Amino acid sequence: MLTFEGQKLQGVDDICSKINQLPFDKCHHLISTIDAQPSSFAGGVVVFVSGSLRLTCEEHPLRFSQMFHLIPTSQGSFYVQNDIFRLNYG
Amino acid sequence: MLTFEGQKLQGVDDICSKINQLPFDKCHHLISTIDAQPSSFAGGVVVFVSGSLRLTCEEHPLRFSQMFHLIPTSQGSFYVQNDIFRLNYG
Repeated sequence: MLTFEGQKLQGVDDICSKINQLPFDKCHHLISTIDAQPSSFAGGVVVFVSGSLRLTCEEHPLRFSQMFHLIPTSQGSFYVQNDIFRLNYG
Repeated sequence: MLTFEGQKLQGVDDICSKINQLPFDKCHHLISTIDAQPSSFAGGVVVFVSGSLRLTCEEHPLRFSQMFHLIPTSQGSFYVQNDIFRLNYG
Protein backbone atom coordinates (compact mmCIF):
# COMPACT_ATOMS: atom_id res chain seq x y z
CA MET A 1 0.00 0.00 0.00
CA LEU A 2 1.08 3.57 -0.72
CA THR A 3 0.33 6.79 1.12
CA PHE A 4 1.32 9.61 -1.24
CA GLU A 5 1.10 13.09 0.27
CA GLY A 6 -1.69 11.79 2.51
CA GLN A 7 -3.63 10.01 -0.26
CA LYS A 8 -4.16 6.33 0.55
CA LEU A 9 -3.81 3.79 -2.25
CA GLN A 10 -3.88 0.02 -2.09
CA GLY A 11 -3.05 -2.69 -4.63
CA VAL A 12 -0.94 -2.75 -7.77
CA ASP A 13 -3.61 -1.28 -10.06
CA ASP A 14 -4.42 1.76 -7.92
CA ILE A 15 -0.76 2.47 -7.16
CA CYS A 16 0.31 2.21 -10.83
CA SER A 17 -2.62 4.38 -11.85
CA LYS A 18 -1.59 7.08 -9.35
CA ILE A 19 2.04 7.03 -10.45
CA ASN A 20 1.08 7.22 -14.12
CA GLN A 21 -1.18 10.20 -13.43
CA LEU A 22 1.56 12.31 -11.81
CA PRO A 23 1.87 15.55 -13.82
CA PHE A 24 5.39 15.09 -15.15
CA ASP A 25 7.22 12.69 -17.44
CA LYS A 26 10.71 12.61 -16.00
CA CYS A 27 11.87 12.79 -12.43
CA HIS A 28 15.47 12.52 -11.23
CA HIS A 29 15.96 11.30 -7.65
CA LEU A 30 18.96 12.59 -5.68
CA ILE A 31 19.27 10.52 -2.51
CA SER A 32 20.69 12.28 0.57
CA THR A 33 20.25 9.66 3.31
CA ILE A 34 19.29 5.98 3.53
CA ASP A 35 18.61 4.32 6.89
CA ALA A 36 17.54 0.69 7.24
CA GLN A 37 16.59 -1.61 10.12
CA PRO A 38 15.40 -5.22 10.32
CA SER A 39 11.65 -5.29 10.94
CA SER A 40 9.77 -7.71 13.15
CA PHE A 41 8.74 -9.78 10.13
CA ALA A 42 11.44 -12.43 9.54
CA GLY A 43 13.75 -11.08 6.86
CA GLY A 44 11.81 -7.85 6.52
CA VAL A 45 13.50 -4.47 6.32
CA VAL A 46 12.25 -0.96 7.02
CA VAL A 47 13.98 1.68 4.93
CA PHE A 48 13.85 5.45 5.34
CA VAL A 49 15.11 7.64 2.50
CA SER A 50 15.45 11.40 2.17
CA GLY A 51 16.54 13.41 -0.82
CA SER A 52 15.47 15.69 -3.64
CA LEU A 53 13.38 15.31 -6.76
CA ARG A 54 14.34 17.23 -9.88
CA LEU A 55 11.51 17.61 -12.35
CA THR A 56 12.05 18.97 -15.86
CA CYS A 57 9.13 21.38 -15.28
CA GLU A 58 10.46 22.77 -11.95
CA GLU A 59 13.44 25.05 -11.50
CA HIS A 60 14.03 24.15 -7.86
CA PRO A 61 14.45 20.64 -6.49
CA LEU A 62 11.73 19.34 -4.17
CA ARG A 63 12.88 17.79 -0.88
CA PHE A 64 11.17 14.56 0.09
CA SER A 65 11.16 11.81 2.72
CA GLN A 66 9.90 8.31 2.10
CA MET A 67 9.69 5.04 4.00
CA PHE A 68 9.35 1.49 2.70
CA HIS A 69 8.66 -1.77 4.47
CA LEU A 70 10.16 -4.59 2.40
CA ILE A 71 9.04 -8.19 2.90
CA PRO A 72 11.04 -11.11 1.48
CA THR A 73 9.50 -13.42 -1.10
CA SER A 74 10.17 -17.14 -1.53
CA GLN A 75 12.04 -16.26 -4.76
CA GLY A 76 14.77 -14.41 -2.89
CA SER A 77 13.60 -10.88 -3.66
CA PHE A 78 11.39 -8.41 -1.77
CA TYR A 79 8.03 -6.80 -2.26
CA VAL A 80 6.94 -3.42 -0.90
CA GLN A 81 4.35 -3.93 1.84
CA ASN A 82 4.26 -0.30 2.99
CA ASP A 83 5.30 2.88 1.18
CA ILE A 84 4.75 6.37 2.62
CA PHE A 85 5.89 9.44 0.68
CA ARG A 86 5.92 13.09 1.76
CA LEU A 87 7.37 16.24 0.28
CA ASN A 88 9.24 18.30 2.88
CA TYR A 89 7.97 21.84 2.94
CA GLY A 90 10.30 24.47 4.39
CA MET B 1 15.93 0.04 17.78
CA LEU B 2 16.56 3.68 16.93
CA THR B 3 18.47 5.24 14.06
CA PHE B 4 19.04 8.89 15.01
CA GLU B 5 20.60 11.02 12.28
CA GLY B 6 22.33 7.88 11.00
CA GLN B 7 23.54 6.69 14.43
CA LYS B 8 22.34 3.16 15.18
CA LEU B 9 21.18 2.36 18.71
CA GLN B 10 19.61 -0.80 20.06
CA GLY B 11 17.93 -1.64 23.35
CA VAL B 12 16.28 0.45 26.06
CA ASP B 13 19.53 1.39 27.83
CA ASP B 14 21.37 2.66 24.75
CA ILE B 15 18.34 4.53 23.42
CA CYS B 16 17.60 6.22 26.78
CA SER B 17 21.26 7.13 27.16
CA LYS B 18 21.29 8.76 23.70
CA ILE B 19 18.10 10.73 24.37
CA ASN B 20 19.37 11.90 27.75
CA GLN B 21 22.63 13.09 26.16
CA LEU B 22 20.95 15.36 23.59
CA PRO B 23 22.27 18.89 24.13
CA PHE B 24 19.04 20.59 25.20
CA ASP B 25 16.56 20.33 28.06
CA LYS B 26 13.27 21.21 26.44
CA CYS B 27 11.99 20.45 23.00
CA HIS B 28 8.54 21.31 21.67
CA HIS B 29 7.23 19.13 18.82
CA LEU B 30 4.93 20.71 16.24
CA ILE B 31 3.45 17.92 14.12
CA SER B 32 2.67 18.75 10.47
CA THR B 33 1.66 15.36 9.03
CA ILE B 34 0.91 11.88 10.38
CA ASP B 35 0.48 8.91 8.02
CA ALA B 36 -0.17 5.37 9.23
CA GLN B 37 -0.60 1.97 7.59
CA PRO B 38 -1.12 -1.56 8.92
CA SER B 39 2.16 -3.48 8.74
CA SER B 40 2.58 -7.13 7.84
CA PHE B 41 2.86 -8.08 11.51
CA ALA B 42 -0.65 -8.81 12.85
CA GLY B 43 -1.86 -5.65 14.55
CA GLY B 44 1.33 -3.76 13.78
CA VAL B 45 1.29 -0.20 12.47
CA VAL B 46 3.87 1.81 10.57
CA VAL B 47 3.67 5.54 11.29
CA PHE B 48 5.37 8.38 9.43
CA VAL B 49 5.47 11.82 11.05
CA SER B 50 6.83 15.14 9.86
CA GLY B 51 7.00 18.42 11.69
CA SER B 52 9.22 20.91 13.48
CA LEU B 53 11.21 20.92 16.69
CA ARG B 54 11.47 24.12 18.69
CA LEU B 55 14.40 24.20 21.09
CA THR B 56 14.83 26.88 23.70
CA CYS B 57 18.42 27.38 22.50
CA GLU B 58 17.53 27.76 18.79
CA GLU B 59 15.79 30.73 17.19
CA HIS B 60 14.55 28.81 14.15
CA PRO B 61 12.53 25.59 14.24
CA LEU B 62 14.20 22.45 12.89
CA ARG B 63 12.19 20.41 10.39
CA PHE B 64 12.22 16.65 10.92
CA SER B 65 10.80 13.40 9.58
CA GLN B 66 10.46 10.25 11.65
CA MET B 67 9.05 6.76 11.22
CA PHE B 68 7.94 4.24 13.84
CA HIS B 69 6.99 0.60 13.57
CA LEU B 70 4.60 -0.21 16.42
CA ILE B 71 3.99 -3.81 17.48
CA PRO B 72 1.06 -4.75 19.73
CA THR B 73 1.67 -6.29 23.16
CA SER B 74 -0.49 -8.83 24.94
CA GLN B 75 -1.47 -6.03 27.38
CA GLY B 76 -3.30 -4.09 24.68
CA SER B 77 -0.65 -1.43 24.10
CA PHE B 78 2.22 -1.14 21.63
CA TYR B 79 5.99 -1.10 21.75
CA VAL B 80 8.30 0.64 19.28
CA GLN B 81 10.14 -1.98 17.22
CA ASN B 82 11.70 0.47 14.74
CA ASP B 83 12.32 4.21 15.04
CA ILE B 84 14.19 6.24 12.42
CA PHE B 85 14.68 9.98 12.88
CA ARG B 86 16.13 12.53 10.46
CA LEU B 87 16.34 16.31 10.45
CA ASN B 88 15.31 17.75 7.06
CA TYR B 89 17.99 20.05 5.74
CA GLY B 90 16.87 22.57 3.14
